[in-house]
Amino acid sequence: MAENLLITNDDGIYAEGIQLLSQVLFDSGRYKLAVVAPDHERSAVGHAITMHRPLRVEQVSFLHNPALSGWAVNGTPSDCVKLAVEALLEERPSLIISGINRGSNLGTDVLYSGTVSAAVEGIILGIPSVAVSLTERGRHEDYIFAAEFVRDLIPHLLEEKLPAGTLLNINVPADRNAVKGVRVTRLGTRRYRNCFDRRTDPRGMIYYWLAGELVEGEEEEDSDVWAVREGYISMTPVQFNLTNEAIIPHLEKMVARMGMSGRQK
Amino acid sequence: MAENLLITNDDGIYAEGIQLLSQVLFDSGRYKLAVVAPDHERSAVGHAITMHRPLRVEQVSFLHNPALSGWAVNGTPSDCVKLAVEALLEERPSLIISGINRGSNLGTDVLYSGTVSAAVEGIILGIPSVAVSLTERGRHEDYIFAAEFVRDLIPHLLEEKLPAGTLLNINVPADRNAVKGVRVTRLGTRRYRNCFDRRTDPRGMIYYWLAGELVEGEEEEDSDVWAVREGYISMTPVQFNLTNEAIIPHLEKMVARMGMSGRQK
Repeated sequence: MAENLLITNDDGIYAEGIQLLSQVLFDSGRYKLAVVAPDHERSAVGHAITMHRPLRVEQVSFLHNPALSGWAVNGTPSDCVKLAVEALLEERPSLIISGINRGSNLGTDVLYSGTVSAAVEGIILGIPSVAVSLTERGRHEDYIFAAEFVRDLIPHLLEEKLPAGTLLNINVPADRNAVKGVRVTRLGTRRYRNCFDRRTDPRGMIYYWLAGELVEGEEEEDSDVWAVREGYISMTPVQFNLTNEAIIPHLEKMVARMGMSGRQK
Repeated sequence: MAENLLITNDDGIYAEGIQLLSQVLFDSGRYKLAVVAPDHERSAVGHAITMHRPLRVEQVSFLHNPALSGWAVNGTPSDCVKLAVEALLEERPSLIISGINRGSNLGTDVLYSGTVSAAVEGIILGIPSVAVSLTERGRHEDYIFAAEFVRDLIPHLLEEKLPAGTLLNINVPADRNAVKGVRVTRLGTRRYRNCFDRRTDPRGMIYYWLAGELVEGEEEEDSDVWAVREGYISMTPVQFNLTNEAIIPHLEKMVARMGMSGRQK
């Protein structure tokens, strides 16, 4: 029986990355695909969900393939995954793939990434999830290359079973001819300089644009930032087990010194 | 010399929680305060940042205290922190406090929380940060109680120095008379049932509302969900060291089986 896959992204359902990914997976003939994605670009939305207005869903036809259709949602990537799994799909997907994003999602940037947040929503719902991005602005054939890599990876992911609460964040270098292979990586750091441009509008009012020039730093070997720069596909296991266990005893002592401890003496 | 504190939230600068927190900290006479917060409510925005439109800042006067003023920003909590630190403030804050939120931010909900995301932005910028929420919908005097708790906690936080990359997520039960003390906690789990209501609008079109009824489950002692339910203030150290190191060797083997390893044999 064909496995169910849910495809989403944050560039919007009409973006090249999701269209080509869906086409390549469709052409493989191996999967039952559901494509549920935002109706327009939702970059840098982080893990936002829509609570204060209704979500609407529109069925859209896809590329020039009438057998392949999708749902456009007026919400964020997290909304799309939640709505797909909880309301739209008849069957629970075996795997969620978010992408292929236009531009990398590396290091601490994953906290802002709509692409990654869709995969986070997936693992919250208990479904194995993968976020896939193409670095820089890849060309048509580079998206195809990345999509084919995902196609070949899926059987392994379905077999391996990632641990609950862990997603894979994959970044593919834009030039497919220079790709040296895959490195399993750690999230690196991304630092920005001069984050805001202060400007004056035509009516003399001040406004600010987020600029955020990337600072190229020394990166440890096997960070995702390093791997992609060196021409590797980076594959980072990202978890959301967020409690810092190590400092709990230290905080217990602090609270005791405040005279506020809720523990029996 | 008075320490600089940055205060923000996600309920908006006119919300009771941030106004009372600012007033209590102002009255302590110990700190130089900067209040930079969204111009209206931005709940469940996660770690969103605004990239595609300009941010505007308006100076607003605060309560009936002319000595206390703030900046209202047409952006998310993360925008407020980034903009404050990178563009608005002359001095770097020693500590960022996000709150006091109207309603709890417990367990996995922190991934959606604008309140917590402001503290995440703080630690990305290398500044110790705390998120504070009042469970349910507290009354005026409960906010005062929570604000006074924060006031008394601050000297300890300034002295202790939290590890880089770790924020404190604090939830205060709404009834101040029933508070039994502080428990240092782990993030629990929050599960929701029947997440979406499917409805028909007056013109016969389908729409979906996120409903999300909370499922009360068995919670381990010392989860934040448990602690607050038992009448304790929960204090959870939350980290954003997201790489799952443990499964890296396993993934290396998977990639090798695919014939795609970027490592020397």
